[in-house]
Amino acid sequence: MKKTNIVLNCLIVVWLIILIMMPQHTMSQRQPGNIISPEILPDNSVIFRIKAPNANSAQVSGTWATGKMTTMEKKDSVFEVKIGPLSSDMYEYDIILDGIPILDPTNNMVTRDGAWIQNRLMIPGVMADIIDVKPVPHGDVKAVWYNSPAIGGERRMFIYTPPGYDKNKKKYPVMYLLHGGGGDEEVWLSRGRANYILDNLIATGKAEPMIVVITNGNPNTPAAPLDRPAEMQNKIQGGIASMASGKFEESLVKDVMPYIEKNYRVIADADHRAITGFSMGGFQTQNITNANPAMFKYIGVMSMGLFSSFGNNPNPNYNKNQHVAQLKALIAAKPKVYWIGIAKSDFLYGTAVKLRSLYDEVGLKYIYRENEGTHDWNSWRLYLSEFAPLCFK
Amino acid sequence: MKKTNIVLNCLIVVWLIILIMMPQHTMSQRQPGNIISPEILPDNSVIFRIKAPNANSAQVSGTWATGKMTTMEKKDSVFEVKIGPLSSDMYEYDIILDGIPILDPTNNMVTRDGAWIQNRLMIPGVMADIIDVKPVPHGDVKAVWYNSPAIGGERRMFIYTPPGYDKNKKKYPVMYLLHGGGGDEEVWLSRGRANYILDNLIATGKAEPMIVVITNGNPNTPAAPLDRPAEMQNKIQGGIASMASGKFEESLVKDVMPYIEKNYRVIADADHRAITGFSMGGFQTQNITNANPAMFKYIGVMSMGLFSSFGNNPNPNYNKNQHVAQLKALIAAKPKVYWIGIAKSDFLYGTAVKLRSLYDEVGLKYIYRENEGTHDWNSWRLYLSEFAPLCFK
Repeated sequence: MKKTNIVLNCLIVVWLIILIMMPQHTMSQRQPGNIISPEILPDNSVIFRIKAPNANSAQVSGTWATGKMTTMEKKDSVFEVKIGPLSSDMYEYDIILDGIPILDPTNNMVTRDGAWIQNRLMIPGVMADIIDVKPVPHGDVKAVWYNSPAIGGERRMFIYTPPGYDKNKKKYPVMYLLHGGGGDEEVWLSRGRANYILDNLIATGKAEPMIVVITNGNPNTPAAPLDRPAEMQNKIQGGIASMASGKFEESLVKDVMPYIEKNYRVIADADHRAITGFSMGGFQTQNITNANPAMFKYIGVMSMGLFSSFGNNPNPNYNKNQHVAQLKALIAAKPKVYWIGIAKSDFLYGTAVKLRSLYDEVGLKYIYRENEGTHDWNSWRLYLSEFAPLCFK
Repeated sequence: MKKTNIVLNCLIVVWLIILIMMPQHTMSQRQPGNIISPEILPDNSVIFRIKAPNANSAQVSGTWATGKMTTMEKKDSVFEVKIGPLSSDMYEYDIILDGIPILDPTNNMVTRDGAWIQNRLMIPGVMADIIDVKPVPHGDVKAVWYNSPAIGGERRMFIYTPPGYDKNKKKYPVMYLLHGGGGDEEVWLSRGRANYILDNLIATGKAEPMIVVITNGNPNTPAAPLDRPAEMQNKIQGGIASMASGKFEESLVKDVMPYIEKNYRVIADADHRAITGFSMGGFQTQNITNANPAMFKYIGVMSMGLFSSFGNNPNPNYNKNQHVAQLKALIAAKPKVYWIGIAKSDFLYGTAVKLRSLYDEVGLKYIYRENEGTHDWNSWRLYLSEFAPLCFK
């Protein structure tokens, strides 16, 4: 194609001038002025800016300080504030303009957890090296639709296969990775960075190569918003009747696992199965492993504890005897790793205290991880990066 | 799991009360008040609403009238406007609040084309039945990383395999599907709905089952923003030196096609290869098929014409003799379908007139499709739904 390259060069210079003028592709609407935001300084402080001549107030709110808003100062028509320095990590943030949370107009990096659509900020360093795209072999990620008689209908999940899966005949262990309330099957990829965390852990020898199965834990919605019919487009994920049905837990065992074990090269025994999830997914992890004690040898409960004990009105119908009987069956099945992770400022912290207390009483051994932080993705990415290396070893 | 369901029911009722209170999952920040927006009325008119007590002005701008803004009227603290009735289709839109384009806070349906992050609106009916998720068998979509010596490094693409691909041993034809300037490999899925359009066309017998390969056409970025290293996170897709290099065109032939033909069950001959793309991708489609006349028997040029002829300063270095020689080689290779589609209000309309004029002069037969509309996704989804059925028949 060498001859055509000369022509191409000339054509494209003209063409790109046009491209820049194209209303469908110009950056001008989303990048008013020559604003740079976020600007990461050498010391990992970050300046946020937004040009908004008509606005009276702007704040920035991010997971470096979940729940807090920092006021941005207006100079001429640009609001600005400096935050940090921040430690290396990925953060989610919003700008709140005259009381309305909006995306940072100059940041294309956007992720969604349920209805929560936010910008992403990656601060380089130790944690970014675990969760960012690095120059290492990448596994593939496949969106598949599978039939789920337990819930009814076709449902969508993602399957991560580790680097090299298509080039050899090996069989692999499998991790089932569950999301929280309000989320769906996309969030462990877009916001959770699960595939890149696994790529990096595998490349550095910290985790065994494994298949990771990322399901949608809401029985009443088959897939993420853009991947379900328009009439369900703004349906809120979950819902009481749906979640209380126990149908997701049933479908994971009856529909998802058989699909994976039939269609992928997996080692289909308990020694090579892990399950973990956060918040709602931590609750579902407990439900599934309590009901099927011999199925998973690696169990991770993230940001969730003994849920019946939570709040001012603990569930009066909680049946401790039944729970203890399940845990004894679990102990008898000899899980290799039972992992509990919770952040010091998590609103569910007290439930984890009670869960550990019960496990201590019953004699179920577990690894306990407590981190600074709260009930957010900074914790869940961290937990995955620490739990995955404990599996299948 | 029947016994545990009773316990689960009680647990979850308590738990969901808590869930609703959780700052990470509440809808309240993104859905202020009890606002519904967009509300689609029975006649397919649409009401947009935003609660913004502190704002002075709000407009809505969408692809039902690309480039126009409609003023929303403020009553108490809520801006509101009724649009339409709209014909069945998928539309992209923004709300412009005090001059800043923002997402509709109550609509979770968001897609991105380059820096252009917008809400989605699906109006039911004929076109929605082609582009929405319908109760038909769904193909799988796999994100794979492949090595590209032609460009350098690992790059990401998506591969759609039709329903049933994993359940039989058949070989399939392949369509290569290219995006426009500013875009990346994600946009034909999220905004273009390519996988669902194919699902629906295949289910209704309108298109042959085929594999669809969706590449990233920007040589200087290996993947979409969230799937490349943070230091490239806000890099604008493309760039003159990168696009002018012709490296994408080279890599499609030297890297992508061999990967697909090695790793997938494809019929690896020209009769079973199609290539199409819009705007930049229509230009690349021409470059690839002009340089490789015997490689594809189905060629679709969307929203792009004879680019060198565009504007007030047509490219002085355009070599018509060379182009004609390429087209004669293409005619000799007997393409089965050469398809050109352009909208009446496309800013590139004149380039398509000149391309057709040249093809008429040279004797290259083509199918010509002209639609109402402009240089936007409403045209490109329509074109895919019409071009795909012409392939491999």
